[in-house]
Amino acid sequence: MTCLTIALDAMGGDFGPCVTVPASLQALASNPALNIQLVGDPAAITPLLVNIHPDILNRLTVIPAEFMVANDAKPSHAIRNSRGTSMRIALNQVKDGLAQACVSAGNTGALMGLSKLMLKPLDGIERPALVTALPNQNGGKTLLLDLGANVECDSEMLVQFAVMGAVMAEEILQIPRPRVALLNIGEEETKGLDNIQAAAAILKNTQQINYIGYLEGNDLLTGETDVLVCDGFVGNVTLKTLEGVVRVFLSLLSSGKRKRSWWMKLIGYWFKKSLSKRFGHLNPDRYNGACLLGLRSTVIKSHGAANQQAFTVAIEQAIQAVERNVPTQIAARLQAVLPKSD
Amino acid sequence: MTCLTIALDAMGGDFGPCVTVPASLQALASNPALNIQLVGDPAAITPLLVNIHPDILNRLTVIPAEFMVANDAKPSHAIRNSRGTSMRIALNQVKDGLAQACVSAGNTGALMGLSKLMLKPLDGIERPALVTALPNQNGGKTLLLDLGANVECDSEMLVQFAVMGAVMAEEILQIPRPRVALLNIGEEETKGLDNIQAAAAILKNTQQINYIGYLEGNDLLTGETDVLVCDGFVGNVTLKTLEGVVRVFLSLLSSGKRKRSWWMKLIGYWFKKSLSKRFGHLNPDRYNGACLLGLRSTVIKSHGAANQQAFTVAIEQAIQAVERNVPTQIAARLQAVLPKSD
Repeated sequence: MTCLTIALDAMGGDFGPCVTVPASLQALASNPALNIQLVGDPAAITPLLVNIHPDILNRLTVIPAEFMVANDAKPSHAIRNSRGTSMRIALNQVKDGLAQACVSAGNTGALMGLSKLMLKPLDGIERPALVTALPNQNGGKTLLLDLGANVECDSEMLVQFAVMGAVMAEEILQIPRPRVALLNIGEEETKGLDNIQAAAAILKNTQQINYIGYLEGNDLLTGETDVLVCDGFVGNVTLKTLEGVVRVFLSLLSSGKRKRSWWMKLIGYWFKKSLSKRFGHLNPDRYNGACLLGLRSTVIKSHGAANQQAFTVAIEQAIQAVERNVPTQIAARLQAVLPKSD
Repeated sequence: MTCLTIALDAMGGDFGPCVTVPASLQALASNPALNIQLVGDPAAITPLLVNIHPDILNRLTVIPAEFMVANDAKPSHAIRNSRGTSMRIALNQVKDGLAQACVSAGNTGALMGLSKLMLKPLDGIERPALVTALPNQNGGKTLLLDLGANVECDSEMLVQFAVMGAVMAEEILQIPRPRVALLNIGEEETKGLDNIQAAAAILKNTQQINYIGYLEGNDLLTGETDVLVCDGFVGNVTLKTLEGVVRVFLSLLSSGKRKRSWWMKLIGYWFKKSLSKRFGHLNPDRYNGACLLGLRSTVIKSHGAANQQAFTVAIEQAIQAVERNVPTQIAARLQAVLPKSD
């Protein structure tokens, strides 16, 4: 791995530096060529940097930021008042070429809007989309997009998402000729909303995309497709439903009210551990980090409630996206696939 | 329980009489005042009725139907060509007052269209909605609607769904002053689509409804609300996502490749059984059967792939809806809540 630098909004998310700083140290320890710029309040960050090995500390810079974007702020208001915030300064590092990617667990709408404003979308992309790689039951992964960056989408946007998803599946998941499907409420051609039917008609005639048709919500984890495309409203509800159900299952696994003897407890513990291992890849913490696709640079949005493990996964995603050069790859493919606007 | 009669589309669903007939016999055995009319091909039904106790057989009638609605037929085409089909004849039994409810696992769109045409919506209801009661982690239930009867909904329809859901929660789930929420992609007031925001504004000013605000997909199973309202596209994707994830978990629970000694297998079996019990209420088979709310009579749509246990649950739902007189209760509440159109 060549040397790379990530600018991190250290103040974003529900827990701020308490999560972002230890996660940064963990990522630095396992990636020797990584540099991290922690953007935020030095008074909150530096106390968390005591007793750190110089090898790691040397690759970490603290960039002061006076303010932060509130998690519940309205995006338009947050963007207007973003001067001096950790999110904006982190994005600016990328804009100025001082970092190759930005990671933030802050306000999604503000991150989306500021990224678009500062880092610009690729030619041919109306609006960037949020994408994540979900584990499927075959041991592979399925990309789901959009996850909430765009609540309403016309057919052209869905087609752009399909192209971006296909490139990401090839580059990041290393799947040759990835299968692309549209999320719908039935598999028959006549089903669903007009924009989905119109996108299907375009994708069917786009040779560069391996379009396989409609799939339903229950196919999310079956591995029937490599890329699943939907509008941001449906994608957000789907992802959160998935996360909610998995968390209920994991909590049921570890709960139990009956009193047991010590050997029963031991066997129970052992079985639960083996089951947790089997279900572990479905744990939302393991696939945290949605990539904002369609920009000229890499921006990763972490879940606001991410813990240290989950935030580290988001940083790892940023490393992968930079190493595989995803924005440039998407730009090249868009040139070939999308209809010219002139 | 007073005597009640259910007309059953015996041919609908993926398995037809192989599932619907044994499920009917099971429901008749556990409900002594129940009568069932099996509508379908006598040649396919009667061979499944040998060696049945006369007590049960006396409460079962076979009504011949020459045709059936194809599962993959386009609804408009299926409705135009519905004469003589088991679905239409079953609905007609309800229309003519010869049965109090209809249950079908057949084509959803056709069942929805035919029901509306033959049984008529209640005053004030534009379009009926599909609703189901999902188990939540508190041991209670949450009603989710619409599940796919209406892919696009304006704010008035969402408000009507909220009213119908609230009445059903009171009558069927016996929850006084049930909490009603709108499914959205964030809990802040400014989030989501225009129709949802407009529905929220109306519901906030509707005193008869205990409206509690927006909830997200991860709240589906938390029991935060008693009724969760969304359009049919989102509801269908959400329900199917839930079902898909639960099935993956249940299949992972029962899978395992390693060879084990007999005593390990025994302990493993015992633990799996105890876990299955704990997760059992989340098994989609246990809550099969969506009620078509907003009609003047009771129609229950079973999952097409329902097995015997699941189809029996759908019949039980029909019994409950008739006993609690849900259509009449909704009609009365609508009079009080909905704005007069004149």
